[in-house]
Amino acid sequence: VSDRIEQLFGTWRRNIDVELARVATDEGEQLPPQLRDAIRYSLTGEGKRIRGLLLMASYNAVREQQQIPRSPHDDNSQDASALAAAVEVVHAYSLVHDDLPCMDDDSVRRGRPTTHKAFDVATATVGGVAMIPLAVRQTLRGSAMLSLDDATSSRLVGILMEASGAAGMIGGQLLDLKGEGRQLSTDQLEAVHRAKTGSLITASFTMGAIAGKGTPSVVDAVKVAGDKLGLAFQIADDVLDATASSEALGKTAGKDAAVSKSTYVSTMGISAARERSQALVGEAMGALEAAGLRTEPLERLARFVAARRS
Amino acid sequence: VSDRIEQLFGTWRRNIDVELARVATDEGEQLPPQLRDAIRYSLTGEGKRIRGLLLMASYNAVREQQQIPRSPHDDNSQDASALAAAVEVVHAYSLVHDDLPCMDDDSVRRGRPTTHKAFDVATATVGGVAMIPLAVRQTLRGSAMLSLDDATSSRLVGILMEASGAAGMIGGQLLDLKGEGRQLSTDQLEAVHRAKTGSLITASFTMGAIAGKGTPSVVDAVKVAGDKLGLAFQIADDVLDATASSEALGKTAGKDAAVSKSTYVSTMGISAARERSQALVGEAMGALEAAGLRTEPLERLARFVAARRS
Repeated sequence: VSDRIEQLFGTWRRNIDVELARVATDEGEQLPPQLRDAIRYSLTGEGKRIRGLLLMASYNAVREQQQIPRSPHDDNSQDASALAAAVEVVHAYSLVHDDLPCMDDDSVRRGRPTTHKAFDVATATVGGVAMIPLAVRQTLRGSAMLSLDDATSSRLVGILMEASGAAGMIGGQLLDLKGEGRQLSTDQLEAVHRAKTGSLITASFTMGAIAGKGTPSVVDAVKVAGDKLGLAFQIADDVLDATASSEALGKTAGKDAAVSKSTYVSTMGISAARERSQALVGEAMGALEAAGLRTEPLERLARFVAARRS
Repeated sequence: VSDRIEQLFGTWRRNIDVELARVATDEGEQLPPQLRDAIRYSLTGEGKRIRGLLLMASYNAVREQQQIPRSPHDDNSQDASALAAAVEVVHAYSLVHDDLPCMDDDSVRRGRPTTHKAFDVATATVGGVAMIPLAVRQTLRGSAMLSLDDATSSRLVGILMEASGAAGMIGGQLLDLKGEGRQLSTDQLEAVHRAKTGSLITASFTMGAIAGKGTPSVVDAVKVAGDKLGLAFQIADDVLDATASSEALGKTAGKDAAVSKSTYVSTMGISAARERSQALVGEAMGALEAAGLRTEPLERLARFVAARRS
């Protein structure tokens, strides 16, 4: 079973990467070459594609519940990978802007120079922003690939933009930056993380359930589970920043401590943080099971993310 | 007639401003206060709201053609001002980012400190990006206010994002920046302007026609006219930069020459540029008339924009 699941995620990840490469090259002729290259660079870096995989996992879990089993080897036009790429485009934007000199001022990301180092600050700023319209278009494309009706497709665009916006990820970037140098309470920290990373993870997971035509109560359960997974992954990220090497991470490690940023590690310590992360994954799976959703292969993915060492 | 038209635009502009103020305060409680204030600051600056007015003008022209006369004093829920505000939100984003140190590095806009001067670079960068999801949401809201079906509403979102994106306004910002210090040919200059300012003006004008349920041939004619108006307004803007005082403009004047930027003034001279701008307005009106659309009050607005001295 284990091998088949690894193979499944590998297939899904490759499908998402194919879509991302397509986003990056589509109508490239019409773009200023430097901008096209910067967008391509930002979209095609190595990545785990966790948000896209979560979308595909919830999509498939909901479809299976409805006894419409789908395999990734089925008709590609019915596949959710185009929609999954849309959330990865938003995530890629957030990495480019997080690394800007006016934000975290980082020079290495996914083992390569950050976009503003490989190009320049203006190109990275503009290229990052340009990914948001690309994500909207990709959501519409992803909806069309799944033959979703226009109301559902509008709803998916709305959810992705809501999660990305000022009350979500984009606002969270600023909260995170402004929190440097101050010790936040656990509640304050959770609010930052819910906005900064949780909102897009929850949105990805929820979008999969909506695209899979889940009932309102199933979609609600998926949303609850998504909230818990988002928090679990952020805690795992904090643990990684404190414990892994820069080389293993592909980005500068130990940055949180260097800028006196409050993290789950600084508020609760490494071992309690690890336990909390695993407990949250358990709670998420409980919520899904209660709604009648099969939790494999999702649980395997979640445990991997929450326990990873690099 | 003249007074009634002035009054009409005044009413439309106020309606758009009411919507923009609403966008800026909506669910403000959930936003980081500094981010909410920066977005509010950027959305509520003085502005002519030309893009929003163009949307309302084409919406009304198309509705009139269909003999469904509308006055701005009619039922507000049927009004296009919410949709008009969506294009103004995108425009406001572009001003915030244009002024950033990594872009034009400007300190005065609409007679006030630019957003990154009034706040800081990180807040202005993040706040600017956050306006794009707000614009998408506002487009969905504007569509709902006009009781448009979901397919039309998705189409409007797609058009606005396409115009905003890498092949449109956002890409044009970078082309414009990279063109500084080089003398461009008239063709190169037109390509920059079509992307940077023309794309959003054309989109605004076209969105009004689509929202007004124009036939495909009417929408096409409006698009052609929008292209011409966009170019006319950009030429007028170049003339203004070369001839008006900073005080009258509410932003730094003479910047184009200072950074050796190619403009219509530098390529064809002030007087020929003025004539070209007026000629383009005439061509736009011709395209609308050929499609059976009434050009008042639009022509008055266009002549005003193309001939303005501040």
